[in-house]
Amino acid sequence: MFTGLSAFPITPLTHDRLDPNAYANIIGRLADSKVDSICALGSTGLYPYLNAEEKGQVIRVAVEHAGDVPVLAGIGSLRLRDVLANAEQAEKLGVKALLLAPLSYQRLTEEEVYELYRRVDEQVSVPICVYDNPVATHFTFSDELHSEIAKLKMIQSIKFPGTPFVEAGEKRIQQLKGILPADVTIGVSGDAFAASGIQSGCDIWYSVLAGLFPRTGQHIFHRAKECNFTQAKALSQEFDPLWDLFTQNLGGMRVMATAAEILGYVEAPCLPAPLTGLNPDSQALLRNLISELELS
Amino acid sequence: MFTGLSAFPITPLTHDRLDPNAYANIIGRLADSKVDSICALGSTGLYPYLNAEEKGQVIRVAVEHAGDVPVLAGIGSLRLRDVLANAEQAEKLGVKALLLAPLSYQRLTEEEVYELYRRVDEQVSVPICVYDNPVATHFTFSDELHSEIAKLKMIQSIKFPGTPFVEAGEKRIQQLKGILPADVTIGVSGDAFAASGIQSGCDIWYSVLAGLFPRTGQHIFHRAKECNFTQAKALSQEFDPLWDLFTQNLGGMRVMATAAEILGYVEAPCLPAPLTGLNPDSQALLRNLISELELS
Repeated sequence: MFTGLSAFPITPLTHDRLDPNAYANIIGRLADSKVDSICALGSTGLYPYLNAEEKGQVIRVAVEHAGDVPVLAGIGSLRLRDVLANAEQAEKLGVKALLLAPLSYQRLTEEEVYELYRRVDEQVSVPICVYDNPVATHFTFSDELHSEIAKLKMIQSIKFPGTPFVEAGEKRIQQLKGILPADVTIGVSGDAFAASGIQSGCDIWYSVLAGLFPRTGQHIFHRAKECNFTQAKALSQEFDPLWDLFTQNLGGMRVMATAAEILGYVEAPCLPAPLTGLNPDSQALLRNLISELELS
Repeated sequence: MFTGLSAFPITPLTHDRLDPNAYANIIGRLADSKVDSICALGSTGLYPYLNAEEKGQVIRVAVEHAGDVPVLAGIGSLRLRDVLANAEQAEKLGVKALLLAPLSYQRLTEEEVYELYRRVDEQVSVPICVYDNPVATHFTFSDELHSEIAKLKMIQSIKFPGTPFVEAGEKRIQQLKGILPADVTIGVSGDAFAASGIQSGCDIWYSVLAGLFPRTGQHIFHRAKECNFTQAKALSQEFDPLWDLFTQNLGGMRVMATAAEILGYVEAPCLPAPLTGLNPDSQALLRNLISELELS
């Protein structure tokens, strides 16, 4: 379940409601290209912005159109009560795994985060991926906490932010393998860091880019696995103008949402207010990049 | 509405549901002590953790038991749709003002935040306080943005984080008065910074401490108004052991929730999981502080 290329699609809205047809098409493209898994309701899929009913709709469409590709679903919420309800609903709707970030408003302690995972682990019957994303959740995991949480029986992967793998990536992977159970895979995210992470030995790439451009994601994934560190850096650098656009727009989500609008996969605007897509200058740049980088 | 001492009470839960009696008692104590306003659903009141129905219950109890003291309510949410619904519900239930933070998961641009306030401003018929809290919302206002938002017709106050007022507070207040409309009041929060902020000329103290200990809040507020900068610093320093406990526990919310448990105002645990109160050592310290500082 937690190896290879995992695609994180956007959740397209129209008039502030899920556009099930547009979403079905996006999921169908991912299924056709045979990515290794699809994550409905990742950060790019805007899980914290959707209520329980909307999350159910999203998962239903994803599972229905994913074909043989296993679907995982984000279940993070500020309250344990809601996390458990999200998990129960997602399992009932047929997801094969769960993605759980320690979402916070009031900052969380290590003990609270451990207890969150323990309680969810106790309830669920599908594997869990720990979602470590300090920028979005404002919680920073220590290695000790990762090690403790990873011992829980349903934890099978950790989605790390990409930065630690850029320099001395292999050393960092070895260090993590030393403190984590053997059956827990190590995932990289932050697409700009993916090639380095994969080359360094990450088992899975949790990819925003592949959520809309699965073939490009597969190209990067497979080449990064085969090459050396210098080549991985060069491979990633080909996409620097795209990664720069991610950075300028506070992450990949707005870029992918706007790309879907440009390509006519979704109606514009597809994001829920107050979130907006790219400004006209960045849109023009993105339009060129889609063609120059042959994103597909 | 937006001057004096504004008390921000906790929202006590029992078995993960609102405890209306405990909350009514807390609000009643605030009404009896005649604070200048009460904010239901501030950060300490855990607004992002509650669903629409729970928020309605909280506001209903607050308005019913606040007597002559005006109630304001937090309406922040990740989606504009939900912010507008929160505002509509709060107004219907009789609040006299609204508190709005640009809550974020995906980071927000200045344009998005401006548009959020513009859209809410357009809908509502009670005044709005802009809630500037970079630690909780992960959005940092520029002075230019504050100035633009403050021009909207329903904006009447800004709740600033306290740090800018500790050093050169008066200069900072003068600077803010220079860029804000005359009818927009300047508020300080972060209780450890309150005395300096009030002494420097802030019009209102948005206070966590006063949410449970209104008389102590009033004591600090009135003394800070009369004294000079050095005296204000000394006044605040008397409470340093309490402010230190706030810092060690990631803010005032857990300390006030635990204080309410210690005093028997609420059943323990009163916070929604995964949030927890203070550990036994900190509880013992807090118990002593309540008596030594004569918190009331």
